[in-house]
Parts: sequence; structure tokens; C-alpha cells
Amino acid sequence: MTYVRNAWYVAEWSVNVPVGKPFGTTILGEPIVIFRKPDGGLAAMANRCVHRGAPLSLGRCEADGLRCMYHGMLYNAAGCVTEIPGQDAVPPNAKVKTYPVVEKDSWVWVWMGDTVADAALVPKAIGLDDPNWLLGHGHMDYDAEAQLINDNLLDFSHLSYVHASSFQVGDSFAQEQPVVTPLDRGIRYERWTTNAAPPLGANPTLRFDNYITYDFLIPGILLMWSGGFPLGTAAKFNHGRPDFDLACNGVNFTNQAVTPLQPGKARYLFSWGPHCKHGDAILRDNMIKLAYVAFNEDKTMIEAQQKVLHRSPDFQIMPSRHDRTVLLYTRLVEKLAKQEVA
Amino acid sequence: MTYVRNAWYVAEWSVNVPVGKPFGTTILGEPIVIFRKPDGGLAAMANRCVHRGAPLSLGRCEADGLRCMYHGMLYNAAGCVTEIPGQDAVPPNAKVKTYPVVEKDSWVWVWMGDTVADAALVPKAIGLDDPNWLLGHGHMDYDAEAQLINDNLLDFSHLSYVHASSFQVGDSFAQEQPVVTPLDRGIRYERWTTNAAPPLGANPTLRFDNYITYDFLIPGILLMWSGGFPLGTAAKFNHGRPDFDLACNGVNFTNQAVTPLQPGKARYLFSWGPHCKHGDAILRDNMIKLAYVAFNEDKTMIEAQQKVLHRSPDFQIMPSRHDRTVLLYTRLVEKLAKQEVA
Amino acid sequence: MTYVRNAWYVAEWSVNVPVGKPFGTTILGEPIVIFRKPDGGLAAMANRCVHRGAPLSLGRCEADGLRCMYHGMLYNAAGCVTEIPGQDAVPPNAKVKTYPVVEKDSWVWVWMGDTVADAALVPKAIGLDDPNWLLGHGHMDYDAEAQLINDNLLDFSHLSYVHASSFQVGDSFAQEQPVVTPLDRGIRYERWTTNAAPPLGANPTLRFDNYITYDFLIPGILLMWSGGFPLGTAAKFNHGRPDFDLACNGVNFTNQAVTPLQPGKARYLFSWGPHCKHGDAILRDNMIKLAYVAFNEDKTMIEAQQKVLHRSPDFQIMPSRHDRTVLLYTRLVEKLAKQEVA
Repeated sequence: MTYVRNAWYVAEWSVNVPVGKPFGTTILGEPIVIFRKPDGGLAAMANRCVHRGAPLSLGRCEADGLRCMYHGMLYNAAGCVTEIPGQDAVPPNAKVKTYPVVEKDSWVWVWMGDTVADAALVPKAIGLDDPNWLLGHGHMDYDAEAQLINDNLLDFSHLSYVHASSFQVGDSFAQEQPVVTPLDRGIRYERWTTNAAPPLGANPTLRFDNYITYDFLIPGILLMWSGGFPLGTAAKFNHGRPDFDLACNGVNFTNQAVTPLQPGKARYLFSWGPHCKHGDAILRDNMIKLAYVAFNEDKTMIEAQQKVLHRSPDFQIMPSRHDRTVLLYTRLVEKLAKQEVA
Repeated sequence: MTYVRNAWYVAEWSVNVPVGKPFGTTILGEPIVIFRKPDGGLAAMANRCVHRGAPLSLGRCEADGLRCMYHGMLYNAAGCVTEIPGQDAVPPNAKVKTYPVVEKDSWVWVWMGDTVADAALVPKAIGLDDPNWLLGHGHMDYDAEAQLINDNLLDFSHLSYVHASSFQVGDSFAQEQPVVTPLDRGIRYERWTTNAAPPLGANPTLRFDNYITYDFLIPGILLMWSGGFPLGTAAKFNHGRPDFDLACNGVNFTNQAVTPLQPGKARYLFSWGPHCKHGDAILRDNMIKLAYVAFNEDKTMIEAQQKVLHRSPDFQIMPSRHDRTVLLYTRLVEKLAKQEVA
Repeated sequence: MTYVRNAWYVAEWSVNVPVGKPFGTTILGEPIVIFRKPDGGLAAMANRCVHRGAPLSLGRCEADGLRCMYHGMLYNAAGCVTEIPGQDAVPPNAKVKTYPVVEKDSWVWVWMGDTVADAALVPKAIGLDDPNWLLGHGHMDYDAEAQLINDNLLDFSHLSYVHASSFQVGDSFAQEQPVVTPLDRGIRYERWTTNAAPPLGANPTLRFDNYITYDFLIPGILLMWSGGFPLGTAAKFNHGRPDFDLACNGVNFTNQAVTPLQPGKARYLFSWGPHCKHGDAILRDNMIKLAYVAFNEDKTMIEAQQKVLHRSPDFQIMPSRHDRTVLLYTRLVEKLAKQEVA
């Protein structure tokens, strides 16, 4: 599978990387340990002690860095061994690869590229502490290639089938095409459903013009807004992007991140919740419960798909019209990946 | 391992393929979905959607066929896609391989050959609804090559050892040879045990001439009759096939099917029970309980054997005299398989 | 990984190989069954019936040997088939490889070499029935290469980190080097810790000169004595080997054996307990409980290390000064293994 390396990958929710407890993971097959310095700042490095290969994620956070708890090699945040118990000198090559790491919008992001990390490339997500939103969050690990999850998120026609019962999306949803626009680092999806039942919570006999839009960005970040508008709004905005201040029902947002851990394994991280003017903590908690139901439907389907593909190495996909979006994104990934190698 | 392809393989008990619920399996390593049309008739096809490889066994049975529940491709019973949500035309190559499938004697049989399916080759089993028999049924999945289970069923000398406690078969059983006759599509096993304890249920101090006979047929179907006869019956029939109407004790029958799912995996399906004149539902249920005990003894042995063979790729078997039957059947399989390739 | 073949490997604790129950294992990847003859003596042979490869460890111990419980082949202690049910003659090549096996010091030892077994090479361990010691015992199976466990036992500086909480060994322990002496078939480790807290049990405000010494012998046998001595003893013996009769606190002993089962799998067997003059059964039982806690700490670390190494085939260790002992032993293994091939 092809992935862009010059990108910020979400390693985990910030809250799951507490002070004093190293966090071990893999991204693109590389073992990585992330830990907090005493000042709370993050460091990320190869999760493999230079001495005998023990994982540093079983190590101990100390004032001066991270100590491997097999034979006591101490690493500073620059990945250099600064102490080897039982000997005076430390060889100059006693160091591990480090990774640029930032904490932003409640996520820990790791730069996997070989070039200088570009802080401007961190996608503009919304953190759990944003006062405008009431966001819950969760995560799942997949026995599937990250690209299969990306494909899933790039073709929302699956809502009519995979989520027929959980999200109660009818077949008609899949029969219409969204408006899709290429972005520099992804694609933008927009879609009006006019004269429709309310998206969330409200009296189901009422009717709205519902709008959903998401950006799906390298290396696998989904940022989605949706809401119900007064009938006629779609026409008023010529079926284009509305002013969200006009929304009168169920405005909600979700951040999602898909991270390739290693071949055939991926992590899926998500938030979801209402705008503060369109819901409360109870609605948020119910939305997260519903998200777990629905995202487990995706997991069941995608992991089953992965098994079929694993047994069918020669299988070629037969794209449908909905795959336009998938192909747009896939070609962007391939283009950027090719530039990296050149 | 060598298997005959021009043959009907048992996919499952009919009752486990209900209306409205697609059944996914593999046979000879090929992923297959079997489902019932609204009229109850069966259809079988490749369990892999042409679109993105999702398993159709997670699909939805509809009036017009089977719908993939990933992105909604609808398949008719001929394996052709008839609807792609969001687009008008369906490409003509949007179809999957289909398999001839019949329902007979309570089993779902799938033809795995590339030639025209030959209905006459379905082995003549006995269904669970046959009024002459009271048959219970069961199934087990093995982590072992189907051929190892076939080998087991072709050499009943294992009863003296594997089933020493469950079936209480003494060492002497293995010391005698059965009469074995080649058939066009298998072998026939016959054996008298004279002046012996009753096979099932009766006063254990009584003595009978017990007779067992089974046909073991391509691709792995065992059909076995056994019963106790008055002393002298073996001699009267010159140790050949008796008239079963003369049986006076414990006449019983078992259908068994061994299906190669994929390399190293097999399914074992079995019925067992008394003739209606020689038992009742209570005896039938006790026989199935006993079958599970005994067949788990086989499973333990064969799965352990499989592990040894897996670690010993160069191992050559050293056939015993009892292996005559195994070799007869194995040569038939090799002959038929060779003819298929020619 | 390189292992010496002309050596006695510990298969299991004697008590786990009872009369009447064959014991199946693998050593260096070879499947082996060990069983007791009616006189209690041991026999060891390939755990794979010549007939169809069934494991003999599922067999039945009889007066005349071990009977395969698949189709009844009977083996004598020389590995020869002596009976094949249903046929008169036994082919002369119906035999399996046998292994020299001895029972000594509560362990079952198997010679894996192709040369004549050398009884003098059985390491001089201490049995569970030795009246001078109160030894408990245990065992663990590792998902790790045996060599990684050997490496662990050859570098005790890990005590300061892996066992910081269980054995309460401070960082200072790792900062000093032991005295290491090469032996013909291993290495000897010796170390004084002067003016230190008592090793076991005693008033923690008291101070002792603690001494530990172990021999680590081919193919992976650790024999360790430790104890506390009156202050000044280290100086008196010039920091060399003391007279253990002078010990005044916590004299204890542990036998340990590391056996490579197959690539990536190992068995770890251990005893531990006080000298009869320095403890009782309650102390012994508490020591075994503590051993399980501590040895599980090793297991967690080493299995995690194994996973990292498995994913990092090109990883090269960077030896520290403490690795002197590991390298000494590793070179001995390589030298002996090379001699075997020559």
C-alpha cells in the first residue's frame, strides 16, 4: 500500500499519553515510543533500545529522559543515550532515531517524513476542549490496511447499506452523487439532502434541508460538519456551501483519523458531538454510543473485506461512479508519494 | 493435497442455510456464498463482490437476489450485477462465478468442477426426514487437511485405539481385516463380528452376529449401516451382505461428509441414529451425544497428527495392511484428478 | 540461533513425567516423547509414529512399551515397532530415532548430540530431595528464543531495572561489575556487595557482606548460591570465594534451566529455596511466589524484546561493559557448535 510519508500522523489522543507513562505504538511499521518530559512536552523516538532491542515503551520516565528498564540505558529527548550503567563512557553512536511530534487539537501528531517537519501541514482539526463544541471521543484498532478505511470514508454511499439500521440511512442516499472538490492535500465533499427528516434529535415529522460537508486530508484525516437548515436553504445557496449560522437543527462535528500502524493493522480515532447551541452532554454521549455501534459495523465489513483480499492477491477492484472521490484521493496520494521518492 | 473437482461437495446441513440469511463458506479454498431465493431455491456464487471484494455473505437477501451490503451492488442468482447505486448502467463484466448447487437428503451440495454438473453423481445419502430412520445430526470444523479425516474413515482399525473408551471397541477389532470392494466412485467396506456383544442398547449378555458396511464415496461421503443379527447369520450369508430385514438388534445408520474448506481446514458433518424399528428419539439423542464424544477423540488425534506433519514436510507414511482401503481410495482420487487435468 | 547439540538439555521436572503418562515436547525443534517403562526407567524417542505421523505422546504406556493410540503400533524402548495390529510381520525399518535420557537431580535430561552421550557432561545440579536445601520449583514457557533468556541470565545488571520492585534491587547494583571466570563448559560469576541490607528475611536494619555466585553452563543451566556474611568477610577472602559455612544469613540456592523448544519458543525451569539451616518451608514457598513475580517481569521484557527483534531483522546489538559475560558464553557456544560441525 502507498502512503505519504511527509505528513503528520495521529498517534493517539493526547489524554492517553499521560506524564510518567511512555506510550508505544507503530506508524507505517516503525516502532515508536512517545513520552512526556517533566515539563509536559512530548518526545518521540524509535521504540527499540540500541543495546539489545528492548522496547523503550516498557521504560521509566525520569527527570533527564526515558530509561530503558532492561539494562538501564538512559535516553534524552534527542534520542541520545546519556548513561550506561556499569561503564563510564557512552559511545557517540548510541542514539535512536527521533520523530518530530506535536500536540494539537487533543491529538498527538508524529511527522513520518525524512524532510524537515512542516508545522503548517498539521490539519486544522477541532480539539475536545473547543468551547463551541461538545465532543466525545473514542478509538478502535483494525485488523485491516488503513487504506481500506480511507476508502470507506471517501465513499459515503456505504451509509445506505453498512449503516442502514444504526444511522437509518435509506437506499436513496446512495443513489445521489455528492459534490466533490479537489484540495491541495485532500478532497472536499458536500451534499444537500432537501426536504428531509431532521439529522439528529428533533421531531421526526419536521423537514429540513440537510447539509453535510467534510474534508478528507492527507494522511487520513476527516473533518466533517453537518446540520439541518430551513427548507429552501439549499436553493438559496444554489446547492453550495451555506452559512452555518443559519442552521436550525442538529449541527454537529466529527474529527476522524486513520493511522497505518503496520501492514494489515490500523488505528481509527474519532470524536463526535453537537455544536454547543444544538445539543448538550447527554446528546454528545448518545452520539458516541451510536458512533461505536456504527463504526463497529464498518469494522466488521472492512475486516471481512481485508480477509477476502488477503486470500485474493490478484483481485482488481471494479470502480463505481461513487469511487470518483476515492480515485481522486488515491491519485493525490500516489502523486505525493512519487514526489517524495524522486 | 489432491482432491477431485468434478464432484458434489457438502457445504452444510440444509437447515443451516435458512431463507433470508446468506451462508458463507470456502470449498477447496474458493470463497462461496450460498443463499435462498424467495422461492426457497438455492443459488451459490463467489463470495467476493466485484466492486471492492467485500464478502457477499454479509449481504441482504432481496426479492431480486443478493445485495452486497458494503456499497449496495445487487446480484441475481446468475451472479450478474443488476444494480449499482448511484449510476445508471452496469458494466457487462460485472459478474461473479456461480456454482451448481442442489439440496438433497438434508445437505446442500456444491459442484466444484469446471465441467457441466452431473446430477447423477450426488451420492445417495439418507435425509434427516426419512421416515425409516431417526437421525440426529452435528458438525465440527477441523484444523486439519480433509484428506487426513478421509484416511481416518477409511481405516476403522482406529476404533480399537482412538475410541477404546467411547465406543468400547477392544484391541481384537483391529486385528481382523474387513472385506473391501472397489466401487466406481469409492470403496465398500464390509465386516462381520460373530458371536459378539450387541452393538447398541440391548442386554449386554446377549450375543449376535454383528455386521457393519459402509460406502466411502468421492469426494468424502461415508454412508454406513450396521446392526446385530441372530447367531449364525454371518455363516448363512457366507460372510457376505445380509438381508437387513433379518436384523434383530440395533440397526443404525450414519451419513458423514468431509469437506476441504481450505488448505489445513476441513468441515465434518454427520448424522447418526437408529432405524425406526430399532430405537426411538431418546436413543437417537444419546447416540448423537456419544458421536460428539467419539468424534472429538478423532479431532484431537487428527489435529495433533496434522501439527506433526506440518513440522515434518519430508515425512513418508509407512502403510500397514489396514491401509489397503486407504490406498485403494487414494489411487482412485489420483486417477480421477489426473483425468480432470488431462 | 546457534546451540550446542552435544549436551544434555532439561526436558522437564521429573515429577511431571509420571509412570503411565507419556510426555511430549520438542527440543531444538525435534518432537520427542518421553515415557517411563513399568520399572520407572525412562525412554525417549521421536514423537511421531512411523505409520501416519501421529504423536506418540497421545499413546498408551503398556508393559512392553508405548502404543500409538491412532492405529495401535506398539514401540519398545529402543524405538522399534514390535506389533502392528492386523498384520503378522513388522518391517525392519519400522523404528523411530531414540535419544539418550537420564533422570538426575529431579530433572529429565535428554542428549541431543549425534555423538555418544557423555554422562559426565550432565551439569551437577541440586535435586528437590537434597536434604541440605528446601527447594520449591516452577516453570514457564516463553514465546522467545532461548538465547534471549540465556543472555538475560548472563547479565545480572538487569536486576536493577527489570526487578526494581520485585527484588528491590537499586540502581547501584548495575553500576558495579562482577568477577567473571571462564569455565570449560560455561562461565562463573561472583560478586560481593559489602555493608549491605540482608539478602532475605532478616532485620533490614542489619548489615552484611552479601555474596552471590553462579555457574552458567552449556546448554543453558544456571546454578546459583547466595548468602549474607558478617561484615568484613569480603575483605577477609580478598573479595574471592568465601567459605559458605561462615554465612550467617539467608543462604539460598537456585537451579535454572533454559531449553530451546523450537525457533522462538523456550521452556524455563527453576527451583529456589533456602539452605535448611537458613529457612523453612514457609520461606521456601514465599520465595517461589516471589520468583514467579520476578520471572514474569523477565518474561514480559524478553517476549517484548523478541517481538521487536522479529520486526527488526537487521538490528545489531550494541554491547555494554556488562555484556562481557554474555560474549564470553556466546563465543564458547559458537566454538563448541563449530567443532560439532567440523
